[in-house]
Amino acid sequence: MTRRQITGFSNPTVKALRALREKKHRKASGRFLAEGLRLLTDARECGHLPETLVLSDARDGHPLLEALEAAVAANGGEIIETTPDILAKITGKDNPQAVAGVFAEFDTTLETVDRGSSDIWLVAQALRDPGNLGTMLRTGDAIGAGGLILIDDCADPFSVEAVRASMGAVFTQKIAKAPWADFESWLRDPAKGAPGQLVAASLREAQPYRNAPYRTPCFVMVGNESRGLPEDYEMACDLRVTMPMMGRADSLNAAIAAAVLGYEVLATINARP
Amino acid sequence: MTRRQITGFSNPTVKALRALREKKHRKASGRFLAEGLRLLTDARECGHLPETLVLSDARDGHPLLEALEAAVAANGGEIIETTPDILAKITGKDNPQAVAGVFAEFDTTLETVDRGSSDIWLVAQALRDPGNLGTMLRTGDAIGAGGLILIDDCADPFSVEAVRASMGAVFTQKIAKAPWADFESWLRDPAKGAPGQLVAASLREAQPYRNAPYRTPCFVMVGNESRGLPEDYEMACDLRVTMPMMGRADSLNAAIAAAVLGYEVLATINARP
Repeated sequence: MTRRQITGFSNPTVKALRALREKKHRKASGRFLAEGLRLLTDARECGHLPETLVLSDARDGHPLLEALEAAVAANGGEIIETTPDILAKITGKDNPQAVAGVFAEFDTTLETVDRGSSDIWLVAQALRDPGNLGTMLRTGDAIGAGGLILIDDCADPFSVEAVRASMGAVFTQKIAKAPWADFESWLRDPAKGAPGQLVAASLREAQPYRNAPYRTPCFVMVGNESRGLPEDYEMACDLRVTMPMMGRADSLNAAIAAAVLGYEVLATINARP
Repeated sequence: MTRRQITGFSNPTVKALRALREKKHRKASGRFLAEGLRLLTDARECGHLPETLVLSDARDGHPLLEALEAAVAANGGEIIETTPDILAKITGKDNPQAVAGVFAEFDTTLETVDRGSSDIWLVAQALRDPGNLGTMLRTGDAIGAGGLILIDDCADPFSVEAVRASMGAVFTQKIAKAPWADFESWLRDPAKGAPGQLVAASLREAQPYRNAPYRTPCFVMVGNESRGLPEDYEMACDLRVTMPMMGRADSLNAAIAAAVLGYEVLATINARP
Protein backbone atom coordinates (compact mmCIF):
# COMPACT_ATOMS: atom_id res chain seq x y z
CA MET A 1 0.00 0.00 0.00
CA THR A 2 0.97 3.58 -0.44
CA ARG A 3 0.34 6.34 2.04
CA ARG A 4 1.04 9.99 1.46
CA GLN A 5 0.31 13.50 2.61
CA ILE A 6 -0.98 16.21 0.28
CA THR A 7 -1.11 19.81 1.37
CA GLY A 8 -1.11 21.74 -1.90
CA PHE A 9 -4.27 22.76 -3.74
CA SER A 10 -2.49 22.52 -7.07
CA ASN A 11 -1.29 18.97 -6.50
CA PRO A 12 -2.17 16.90 -9.60
CA THR A 13 -3.88 14.23 -7.45
CA VAL A 14 -6.15 16.88 -5.95
CA LYS A 15 -7.00 18.08 -9.44
CA ALA A 16 -7.71 14.52 -10.62
CA LEU A 17 -9.93 13.82 -7.60
CA ARG A 18 -11.79 17.07 -8.00
CA ALA A 19 -12.35 16.34 -11.67
CA LEU A 20 -14.41 13.30 -10.65
CA ARG A 21 -17.23 15.75 -9.93
CA GLU A 22 -17.58 16.09 -13.72
CA LYS A 23 -19.23 13.38 -15.74
CA LYS A 24 -16.70 13.38 -18.57
CA HIS A 25 -13.85 12.76 -16.14
CA ARG A 26 -15.77 10.01 -14.36
CA LYS A 27 -16.45 8.41 -17.70
CA ALA A 28 -12.85 8.71 -18.87
CA SER A 29 -11.43 7.28 -15.66
CA GLY A 30 -14.20 4.83 -14.80
CA ARG A 31 -14.04 6.11 -11.21
CA PHE A 32 -16.39 7.94 -8.86
CA LEU A 33 -16.26 9.64 -5.50
CA ALA A 34 -18.19 8.87 -2.32
CA GLU A 35 -17.94 10.70 1.02
CA GLY A 36 -18.53 10.02 4.67
CA LEU A 37 -17.61 7.35 7.16
CA ARG A 38 -21.07 5.87 7.31
CA LEU A 39 -21.36 5.60 3.55
CA LEU A 40 -17.87 4.16 3.12
CA THR A 41 -18.54 1.68 5.92
CA ASP A 42 -21.73 0.57 4.19
CA ALA A 43 -19.71 0.17 1.02
CA ARG A 44 -17.06 -1.93 2.80
CA GLU A 45 -19.67 -4.14 4.41
CA CYS A 46 -21.18 -4.71 0.95
CA GLY A 47 -17.77 -5.71 -0.40
CA HIS A 48 -16.83 -2.42 -2.07
CA LEU A 49 -13.49 -0.94 -1.05
CA PRO A 50 -12.21 2.36 -2.43
CA GLU A 51 -9.06 2.25 -4.52
CA THR A 52 -8.05 5.51 -2.87
CA LEU A 53 -9.05 6.67 0.59
CA VAL A 54 -8.75 10.40 1.30
CA LEU A 55 -8.59 11.34 4.97
CA SER A 56 -8.79 14.74 6.64
CA ASP A 57 -5.77 15.39 8.82
CA ALA A 58 -8.19 17.05 11.26
CA ARG A 59 -10.26 13.87 11.66
CA ASP A 60 -11.26 12.39 15.00
CA GLY A 61 -10.27 8.79 15.58
CA HIS A 62 -13.05 6.23 15.15
CA PRO A 63 -12.98 2.43 15.21
CA LEU A 64 -14.91 2.26 11.92
CA LEU A 65 -12.43 4.63 10.31
CA GLU A 66 -9.54 2.47 11.50
CA ALA A 67 -11.30 -0.62 10.15
CA LEU A 68 -11.77 1.14 6.82
CA GLU A 69 -8.13 2.24 6.64
CA ALA A 70 -6.95 -1.27 7.49
CA ALA A 71 -9.19 -2.84 4.84
CA VAL A 72 -8.08 -0.42 2.13
CA ALA A 73 -4.43 -0.99 3.08
CA ALA A 74 -4.84 -4.77 3.09
CA ASN A 75 -6.44 -4.52 -0.33
CA GLY A 76 -3.42 -2.67 -1.74
CA GLY A 77 -5.24 0.64 -1.96
CA GLU A 78 -3.80 4.11 -1.64
CA ILE A 79 -4.29 6.30 1.45
CA ILE A 80 -4.00 10.06 1.21
CA GLU A 81 -4.04 12.48 4.11
CA THR A 82 -4.93 16.06 3.39
CA THR A 83 -6.39 19.23 4.90
CA PRO A 84 -10.12 19.88 5.45
CA ASP A 85 -9.87 22.75 2.92
CA ILE A 86 -8.58 20.46 0.22
CA LEU A 87 -11.24 17.86 1.05
CA ALA A 88 -13.85 20.61 0.72
CA LYS A 89 -12.43 21.47 -2.68
CA ILE A 90 -12.47 17.84 -3.81
CA THR A 91 -16.03 17.11 -2.70
CA GLY A 92 -17.46 20.56 -3.44
CA LYS A 93 -18.97 20.72 0.04
CA ASP A 94 -18.36 23.54 2.48
CA ASN A 95 -18.23 21.32 5.55
CA PRO A 96 -16.72 18.18 4.12
CA GLN A 97 -16.91 14.82 5.83
CA ALA A 98 -13.59 13.63 7.27
CA VAL A 99 -13.20 10.90 4.67
CA ALA A 100 -13.85 10.28 1.00
CA GLY A 101 -13.10 7.35 -1.28
CA VAL A 102 -12.52 6.78 -4.98
CA PHE A 103 -14.28 3.70 -6.33
CA ALA A 104 -14.19 1.92 -9.65
CA GLU A 105 -17.58 2.23 -11.37
CA PHE A 106 -19.61 -0.97 -11.42
CA ASP A 107 -20.59 -2.99 -14.43
CA THR A 108 -23.95 -1.52 -15.44
CA THR A 109 -24.84 -3.79 -18.35
CA LEU A 110 -28.33 -5.25 -18.23
CA GLU A 111 -26.88 -8.73 -18.72
CA THR A 112 -25.49 -8.64 -15.18
CA VAL A 113 -29.01 -8.27 -13.68
CA ASP A 114 -30.61 -11.45 -12.31
CA ARG A 115 -34.21 -10.34 -12.24
CA GLY A 116 -35.34 -13.38 -10.28
CA SER A 117 -33.14 -12.31 -7.36
CA SER A 118 -35.68 -9.71 -6.14
CA ASP A 119 -39.44 -9.22 -6.15
CA ILE A 120 -39.23 -5.52 -6.96
CA TRP A 121 -37.07 -3.43 -9.30
CA LEU A 122 -37.23 0.28 -9.94
CA VAL A 123 -36.93 1.69 -13.46
CA ALA A 124 -36.27 5.33 -14.34
CA GLN A 125 -36.70 6.67 -17.87
CA ALA A 126 -34.78 9.80 -18.88
CA LEU A 127 -34.65 11.00 -15.29
CA ARG A 128 -32.56 14.20 -15.34
CA ASP A 129 -32.15 15.10 -11.68
CA PRO A 130 -29.29 13.27 -9.94
CA GLY A 131 -30.93 13.95 -6.56
CA ASN A 132 -34.09 12.16 -7.71
CA LEU A 133 -31.98 9.29 -8.94
CA GLY A 134 -30.08 8.96 -5.66
CA THR A 135 -33.36 9.17 -3.74
CA MET A 136 -34.74 6.33 -5.88
CA LEU A 137 -31.71 4.21 -4.98
CA ARG A 138 -32.28 4.97 -1.28
CA THR A 139 -35.98 4.08 -1.60
CA GLY A 140 -35.09 0.91 -3.51
CA ASP A 141 -32.91 -0.22 -0.63
CA ALA A 142 -35.78 0.47 1.80
CA ILE A 143 -38.40 -1.52 -0.12
CA GLY A 144 -35.99 -4.40 -0.73
CA ALA A 145 -35.71 -3.75 -4.46
CA GLY A 146 -32.96 -5.50 -6.37
CA GLY A 147 -31.82 -2.35 -8.08
CA LEU A 148 -32.49 0.53 -10.41
CA ILE A 149 -32.57 0.27 -14.19
CA LEU A 150 -31.89 3.46 -16.10
CA ILE A 151 -33.60 3.72 -19.47
CA ASP A 152 -32.52 6.13 -22.19
CA ASP A 153 -30.62 9.28 -21.24
CA CYS A 154 -30.66 9.54 -17.43
CA ALA A 155 -28.57 11.55 -14.98
CA ASP A 156 -25.37 9.85 -13.86
CA PRO A 157 -25.91 7.56 -10.84
CA PHE A 158 -22.21 7.99 -9.97
CA SER A 159 -22.39 11.77 -9.71
CA VAL A 160 -21.57 13.22 -6.29
CA GLU A 161 -25.18 14.44 -5.91
CA ALA A 162 -26.70 11.03 -6.73
CA VAL A 163 -24.25 9.13 -4.51
CA ARG A 164 -24.95 11.56 -1.65
CA ALA A 165 -28.75 11.34 -2.01
CA SER A 166 -28.54 7.54 -2.20
CA MET A 167 -27.18 7.50 1.37
CA GLY A 168 -25.07 4.44 0.52
CA ALA A 169 -27.67 2.61 -1.56
CA VAL A 170 -25.46 3.11 -4.63
CA PHE A 171 -23.47 0.23 -3.10
CA THR A 172 -26.41 -2.00 -2.17
CA GLN A 173 -28.60 -1.59 -5.23
CA LYS A 174 -27.73 -3.10 -8.59
CA ILE A 175 -27.54 -0.36 -11.22
CA ALA A 176 -28.05 -1.07 -14.91
CA LYS A 177 -28.37 1.17 -17.97
CA ALA A 178 -30.09 0.30 -21.22
CA PRO A 179 -31.91 1.84 -24.14
CA TRP A 180 -35.66 1.15 -24.07
CA ALA A 181 -35.63 -1.43 -26.88
CA ASP A 182 -32.90 -3.48 -25.16
CA PHE A 183 -34.70 -3.32 -21.85
CA GLU A 184 -37.98 -4.39 -23.37
CA SER A 185 -36.52 -7.44 -25.12
CA TRP A 186 -34.55 -8.41 -22.00
CA LEU A 187 -37.72 -8.15 -19.89
CA ARG A 188 -39.68 -10.36 -22.31
CA ASP A 189 -36.89 -12.90 -22.90
CA PRO A 190 -37.82 -16.21 -21.22
CA ALA A 191 -34.16 -17.23 -21.24
CA LYS A 192 -33.52 -14.50 -18.66
CA GLY A 193 -35.95 -15.95 -16.10
CA ALA A 194 -39.60 -15.48 -15.20
CA PRO A 195 -41.14 -12.65 -17.19
CA GLY A 196 -41.08 -9.33 -15.38
CA GLN A 197 -44.26 -7.32 -14.89
CA LEU A 198 -43.75 -3.75 -16.05
CA VAL A 199 -45.85 -1.22 -14.12
CA ALA A 200 -46.17 2.49 -14.82
CA ALA A 201 -47.85 5.31 -12.98
CA SER A 202 -50.10 6.67 -15.70
CA LEU A 203 -53.30 8.52 -16.47
CA ARG A 204 -53.98 6.45 -19.60
CA GLU A 205 -56.35 3.48 -19.22
CA ALA A 206 -55.07 3.09 -15.71
CA GLN A 207 -56.56 1.34 -12.69
CA PRO A 208 -56.26 2.49 -9.07
CA TYR A 209 -52.81 1.77 -7.68
CA ARG A 210 -54.14 0.51 -4.34
CA ASN A 211 -54.04 -3.32 -4.19
CA ALA A 212 -53.63 -3.54 -7.97
CA PRO A 213 -52.75 -6.99 -9.39
CA TYR A 214 -48.97 -6.67 -9.01
CA ARG A 215 -46.91 -9.78 -9.64
CA THR A 216 -43.24 -10.50 -9.14
CA PRO A 217 -40.69 -9.68 -10.32
CA CYS A 218 -42.40 -6.31 -10.51
CA PHE A 219 -40.68 -3.47 -12.39
CA VAL A 220 -41.94 -0.06 -11.23
CA MET A 221 -41.22 2.56 -13.90
CA VAL A 222 -41.33 6.36 -13.71
CA GLY A 223 -40.52 8.83 -16.47
CA ASN A 224 -38.79 12.12 -17.06
CA GLU A 225 -39.49 14.98 -14.63
CA SER A 226 -41.15 17.28 -17.19
CA ARG A 227 -42.43 14.98 -19.91
CA GLY A 228 -43.30 11.80 -18.02
CA LEU A 229 -43.13 8.50 -19.91
CA PRO A 230 -43.51 8.40 -23.70
CA GLU A 231 -46.96 7.10 -24.61
CA ASP A 232 -45.64 4.00 -26.40
CA TYR A 233 -43.59 3.05 -23.34
CA GLU A 234 -46.68 3.31 -21.18
CA MET A 235 -48.70 1.24 -23.60
CA ALA A 236 -46.01 -1.45 -23.55
CA CYS A 237 -46.48 -1.82 -19.78
CA ASP A 238 -48.30 -4.83 -18.34
CA LEU A 239 -50.11 -2.65 -15.85
CA ARG A 240 -50.85 1.06 -15.70
CA VAL A 241 -51.91 2.39 -12.34
CA THR A 242 -53.02 5.78 -11.18
CA MET A 243 -52.58 7.47 -7.83
CA PRO A 244 -55.18 9.91 -6.51
CA MET A 245 -54.43 13.52 -7.44
CA MET A 246 -56.77 15.49 -5.20
CA GLY A 247 -55.46 18.99 -5.89
CA ARG A 248 -54.51 21.16 -8.84
CA ALA A 249 -51.35 19.30 -9.80
CA ASP A 250 -51.54 16.45 -12.29
CA SER A 251 -48.29 14.73 -11.36
CA LEU A 252 -45.98 13.88 -8.49
CA ASN A 253 -42.24 14.32 -8.23
CA ALA A 254 -40.73 11.27 -9.99
CA ALA A 255 -38.93 9.91 -6.91
CA ILE A 256 -42.10 10.39 -4.85
CA ALA A 257 -44.21 8.50 -7.41
CA ALA A 258 -41.69 5.63 -7.45
CA ALA A 259 -41.72 5.44 -3.65
CA VAL A 260 -45.50 5.53 -3.18
CA LEU A 261 -45.90 2.91 -5.88
CA GLY A 262 -42.94 0.81 -4.67
CA TYR A 263 -44.29 0.67 -1.11
CA GLU A 264 -47.71 -0.26 -2.46
CA VAL A 265 -46.22 -3.14 -4.47
CA LEU A 266 -44.32 -4.31 -1.39
CA ALA A 267 -47.43 -4.22 0.82
CA THR A 268 -49.62 -5.88 -1.80
CA ILE A 269 -47.31 -8.79 -2.59
CA ASN A 270 -46.58 -9.35 1.12
CA ALA A 271 -50.29 -9.39 2.01
CA ARG A 272 -50.91 -12.38 -0.23
CA PRO A 273 -51.10 -15.84 1.32
CA MET B 1 -50.70 50.30 -13.81
CA THR B 2 -47.11 50.95 -14.74
CA ARG B 3 -45.29 49.29 -17.58
CA ARG B 4 -41.61 49.71 -18.31
CA GLN B 5 -38.67 48.27 -20.14
CA ILE B 6 -35.41 47.37 -18.40
CA THR B 7 -32.31 46.50 -20.38
CA GLY B 8 -29.45 47.21 -17.97
CA PHE B 9 -28.01 44.60 -15.63
CA SER B 10 -27.14 47.29 -13.09
CA ASN B 11 -30.67 48.68 -12.96
CA PRO B 12 -31.71 48.98 -9.29
CA THR B 13 -34.95 47.07 -9.93
CA VAL B 14 -32.96 44.14 -11.35
CA LYS B 15 -30.77 44.19 -8.27
CA ALA B 16 -33.79 44.27 -5.97
CA LEU B 17 -35.45 41.39 -7.81
CA ARG B 18 -32.30 39.35 -7.82
CA ALA B 19 -31.87 39.95 -4.08
CA LEU B 20 -35.13 38.05 -3.52
CA ARG B 21 -33.11 34.88 -4.00
CA GLU B 22 -31.61 35.57 -0.57
CA LYS B 23 -33.61 34.91 2.56
CA LYS B 24 -32.67 38.12 4.34
CA HIS B 25 -33.93 40.23 1.43
CA ARG B 26 -37.14 38.22 1.20
CA LYS B 27 -37.66 38.70 4.90
CA ALA B 28 -36.90 42.43 4.77
CA SER B 29 -39.21 43.03 1.82
CA GLY B 30 -41.89 40.43 2.61
CA ARG B 31 -41.78 39.44 -1.06
CA PHE B 32 -40.84 36.31 -3.00
CA LEU B 33 -40.25 35.28 -6.58
CA ALA B 34 -42.01 32.61 -8.65
CA GLU B 35 -41.31 31.70 -12.27
CA GLY B 36 -43.07 30.17 -15.21
CA LEU B 37 -46.38 30.66 -16.99
CA ARG B 38 -47.92 27.49 -15.64
CA LEU B 39 -47.04 28.32 -12.06
CA LEU B 40 -48.17 31.94 -12.33
CA THR B 41 -51.40 30.81 -13.96
CA ASP B 42 -52.01 28.39 -11.09
CA ALA B 43 -51.37 31.26 -8.72
CA ARG B 44 -53.81 33.52 -10.54
CA GLU B 45 -56.50 30.85 -10.57
CA CYS B 46 -56.01 30.49 -6.80
CA GLY B 47 -56.45 34.22 -6.33
CA HIS B 48 -52.78 35.19 -6.05
CA LEU B 49 -51.60 37.91 -8.42
CA PRO B 50 -48.01 39.12 -8.52
CA GLU B 51 -47.38 42.72 -7.55
CA THR B 52 -44.77 42.84 -10.29
CA LEU B 53 -44.77 40.76 -13.46
CA VAL B 54 -41.43 40.39 -15.27
CA LEU B 55 -41.67 39.38 -18.92
CA SER B 56 -38.96 38.32 -21.33
CA ASP B 57 -38.94 40.50 -24.43
CA ALA B 58 -38.19 37.30 -26.37
CA ARG B 59 -41.39 35.58 -25.20
CA ASP B 60 -43.84 33.86 -27.49
CA GLY B 61 -47.42 35.06 -27.31
CA HIS B 62 -49.77 32.83 -25.31
CA PRO B 63 -53.43 33.35 -24.31
CA LEU B 64 -52.60 32.47 -20.67
CA LEU B 65 -49.79 35.01 -20.65
CA GLU B 66 -52.13 37.66 -22.01
CA ALA B 67 -54.70 36.76 -19.35
CA LEU B 68 -52.01 37.06 -16.70
CA GLU B 69 -50.83 40.44 -17.97
CA ALA B 70 -54.37 41.73 -18.09
CA ALA B 71 -55.10 40.55 -14.56
CA VAL B 72 -51.94 42.10 -13.14
CA ALA B 73 -52.66 45.37 -14.95
CA ALA B 74 -56.29 45.42 -13.76
CA ASN B 75 -55.04 44.82 -10.22
CA GLY B 76 -52.78 47.89 -10.40
CA GLY B 77 -49.59 45.81 -10.61
CA GLU B 78 -46.37 46.69 -12.33
CA ILE B 79 -45.27 45.06 -15.60
CA ILE B 80 -41.62 44.97 -16.56
CA GLU B 81 -40.21 43.80 -19.86
CA THR B 82 -36.60 42.75 -19.96
CA THR B 83 -34.11 40.55 -21.79
CA PRO B 84 -33.77 36.77 -21.32
CA ASP B 85 -30.25 37.39 -19.94
CA ILE B 86 -31.53 39.66 -17.22
CA LEU B 87 -34.33 37.22 -16.42
CA ALA B 88 -31.69 34.51 -16.10
CA LYS B 89 -29.78 36.71 -13.71
CA ILE B 90 -32.88 37.42 -11.62
CA THR B 91 -34.00 33.80 -11.34
CA GLY B 92 -30.55 32.23 -11.24
CA LYS B 93 -31.52 29.79 -13.95
CA ASP B 94 -29.58 29.33 -17.16
CA ASN B 95 -32.63 28.84 -19.34
CA PRO B 96 -35.15 31.07 -17.62
CA GLN B 97 -38.86 30.82 -18.14
CA ALA B 98 -40.34 33.70 -20.13
CA VAL B 99 -42.12 35.13 -17.10
CA ALA B 100 -41.60 35.63 -13.39
CA GLY B 101 -43.63 37.33 -10.72
CA VAL B 102 -43.02 39.01 -7.38
CA PHE B 103 -45.58 38.10 -4.73
CA ALA B 104 -46.25 39.34 -1.22
CA GLU B 105 -45.51 36.58 1.27
CA PHE B 106 -48.59 35.04 2.88
CA ASP B 107 -49.60 35.22 6.49
CA THR B 108 -47.99 32.13 8.02
CA THR B 109 -49.26 32.38 11.58
CA LEU B 110 -50.80 29.21 12.96
CA GLU B 111 -53.91 31.15 13.96
CA THR B 112 -54.85 31.44 10.29
CA VAL B 113 -55.09 27.64 9.91
CA ASP B 114 -58.57 26.12 10.08
CA ARG B 115 -57.64 22.53 10.81
CA GLY B 116 -61.17 21.25 10.23
CA SER B 117 -61.00 22.39 6.60
CA SER B 118 -58.96 19.34 5.52
CA ASP B 119 -58.62 15.69 6.56
CA ILE B 120 -54.82 15.68 6.18
CA TRP B 121 -52.07 18.14 7.05
CA LEU B 122 -48.34 17.73 6.61
CA VAL B 123 -45.91 18.83 9.30
CA ALA B 124 -42.16 19.28 8.86
CA GLN B 125 -39.81 19.71 11.80
CA ALA B 126 -36.47 21.46 11.24
CA LEU B 127 -36.43 20.41 7.59
CA ARG B 128 -33.33 22.02 6.07
CA ASP B 129 -33.59 21.25 2.37
CA PRO B 130 -35.79 23.70 0.43
CA GLY B 131 -36.23 21.07 -2.31
CA ASN B 132 -37.68 18.63 0.22
CA LEU B 133 -39.96 21.34 1.51
CA GLY B 134 -41.22 22.24 -1.96
CA THR B 135 -41.71 18.56 -2.75
CA MET B 136 -43.79 18.19 0.43
CA LEU B 137 -46.00 21.08 -0.72
CA ARG B 138 -46.43 19.39 -4.10
CA THR B 139 -47.29 16.07 -2.43
CA GLY B 140 -49.67 17.83 -0.05
CA ASP B 141 -51.58 19.23 -3.02
CA ALA B 142 -51.75 15.72 -4.53
CA ILE B 143 -53.13 14.03 -1.41
CA GLY B 144 -55.61 16.84 -0.79
CA ALA B 145 -53.84 18.10 2.32
CA GLY B 146 -54.82 21.47 3.69
CA GLY B 147 -51.26 22.66 4.00
CA LEU B 148 -47.83 22.33 5.50
CA ILE B 149 -46.91 23.37 9.02
CA LEU B 150 -43.26 24.17 9.63
CA ILE B 151 -42.04 23.48 13.14
CA ASP B 152 -38.86 25.00 14.58
CA ASP B 153 -36.11 26.15 12.23
CA CYS B 154 -37.04 24.98 8.71
CA ALA B 155 -35.83 26.02 5.27
CA ASP B 156 -37.70 28.96 3.76
CA PRO B 157 -40.83 27.85 1.84
CA PHE B 158 -40.60 31.07 -0.22
CA SER B 159 -37.08 30.38 -1.48
CA VAL B 160 -36.74 30.01 -5.24
CA GLU B 161 -35.83 26.31 -4.82
CA ALA B 162 -38.85 25.51 -2.64
CA VAL B 163 -41.27 27.44 -4.85
CA ARG B 164 -39.86 25.68 -7.93
CA ALA B 165 -40.05 22.19 -6.37
CA SER B 166 -43.60 22.89 -5.18
CA MET B 167 -44.72 23.17 -8.81
CA GLY B 168 -47.27 25.79 -7.84
CA ALA B 169 -48.45 24.14 -4.61
CA VAL B 170 -46.97 27.05 -2.66
CA PHE B 171 -50.12 28.87 -3.84
CA THR B 172 -52.61 26.08 -3.13
CA GLN B 173 -51.35 24.80 0.22
CA LYS B 174 -51.72 26.79 3.42
CA ILE B 175 -48.28 27.38 4.96
CA ALA B 176 -47.83 28.03 8.66
CA LYS B 177 -44.76 28.35 10.90
CA ALA B 178 -44.63 27.73 14.63
CA PRO B 179 -42.31 26.64 17.41
CA TRP B 180 -43.10 23.15 18.70
CA ALA B 181 -44.68 24.28 21.96
CA ASP B 182 -47.08 26.64 20.17
CA PHE B 183 -48.01 23.96 17.65
CA GLU B 184 -48.67 21.41 20.36
CA SER B 185 -50.96 23.66 22.36
CA TRP B 186 -52.79 24.75 19.21
CA LEU B 187 -53.30 21.11 18.20
CA ARG B 188 -54.71 20.22 21.62
CA ASP B 189 -56.85 23.33 22.00
CA PRO B 190 -60.55 22.37 21.71
CA ALA B 191 -61.40 25.98 20.91
CA LYS B 192 -59.59 25.52 17.59
CA GLY B 193 -61.84 22.67 16.43
CA ALA B 194 -61.77 18.88 16.58
CA PRO B 195 -58.49 17.64 18.09
CA GLY B 196 -55.91 16.78 15.48
CA GLN B 197 -54.23 13.37 15.44
CA LEU B 198 -50.47 13.77 15.31
CA VAL B 199 -48.72 10.91 13.49
CA ALA B 200 -44.99 10.36 13.15
CA ALA B 201 -42.95 7.87 11.21
CA SER B 202 -40.87 6.36 13.98
CA LEU B 203 -38.96 3.30 15.12
CA ARG B 204 -39.99 3.80 18.77
CA GLU B 205 -42.99 1.79 20.02
CA ALA B 206 -44.42 2.07 16.55
CA GLN B 207 -47.05 0.02 14.77
CA PRO B 208 -47.07 -0.90 11.07
CA TYR B 209 -48.08 2.08 8.95
CA ARG B 210 -50.38 0.02 6.72
CA ASN B 211 -54.04 0.53 7.62
CA ALA B 212 -53.07 2.03 10.98
CA PRO B 213 -55.88 3.70 12.97
CA TYR B 214 -55.59 7.13 11.38
CA ARG B 215 -58.28 9.67 12.20
CA THR B 216 -59.03 13.09 10.82
CA PRO B 217 -57.80 15.75 10.87
CA CYS B 218 -54.58 13.76 10.62
CA PHE B 219 -51.25 15.60 10.97
CA VAL B 220 -48.40 13.65 9.33
CA MET B 221 -45.08 14.78 10.78
CA VAL B 222 -41.53 14.17 9.55
CA GLY B 223 -38.29 15.39 11.10
CA ASN B 224 -34.94 16.83 10.16
CA GLU B 225 -33.01 15.13 7.35
CA SER B 226 -30.08 13.99 9.52
CA ARG B 227 -31.45 13.80 13.05
CA GLY B 228 -35.08 12.84 12.51
CA LEU B 229 -37.62 13.96 15.11
CA PRO B 230 -36.55 14.69 18.70
CA GLU B 231 -37.62 11.82 20.96
CA ASP B 232 -39.96 13.97 23.07
CA TYR B 233 -41.76 15.18 19.94
CA GLU B 234 -42.26 11.59 18.86
CA MET B 235 -43.54 10.59 22.27
CA ALA B 236 -46.03 13.48 22.15
CA CYS B 237 -47.57 12.01 18.99
CA ASP B 238 -50.91 10.22 19.12
CA LEU B 239 -49.68 7.52 16.79
CA ARG B 240 -46.21 6.32 15.83
CA VAL B 241 -46.03 4.20 12.72
CA THR B 242 -43.20 2.39 11.03
CA MET B 243 -42.62 1.66 7.37
CA PRO B 244 -40.79 -1.51 6.30
CA MET B 245 -37.05 -0.96 5.89
CA MET B 246 -35.94 -4.06 4.02
CA GLY B 247 -32.35 -3.07 3.25
CA ARG B 248 -29.36 -1.57 5.01
CA ALA B 249 -30.74 1.93 5.42
CA ASP B 250 -32.70 2.82 8.54
CA SER B 251 -34.50 5.85 7.18
CA LEU B 252 -36.14 7.34 4.12
CA ASN B 253 -35.69 10.76 2.60
CA ALA B 254 -38.00 13.07 4.60
CA ALA B 255 -40.19 14.08 1.64
CA ILE B 256 -40.47 10.41 0.62
CA ALA B 257 -41.53 9.36 4.13
CA ALA B 258 -44.17 12.12 4.21
CA ALA B 259 -45.52 11.03 0.82
CA VAL B 260 -45.70 7.30 1.54
CA LEU B 261 -47.37 8.00 4.87
CA GLY B 262 -49.63 10.72 3.45
CA TYR B 263 -50.92 8.45 0.68
CA GLU B 264 -51.49 5.68 3.24
CA VAL B 265 -53.55 8.02 5.41
CA LEU B 266 -55.57 9.10 2.36
CA ALA B 267 -56.24 5.50 1.29
CA THR B 268 -57.09 4.36 4.82
CA ILE B 269 -59.53 7.15 5.65
CA ASN B 270 -61.19 6.84 2.23
CA ALA B 271 -61.62 3.07 2.57
CA ARG B 272 -63.79 3.49 5.66
CA PRO B 273 -67.57 3.24 5.30
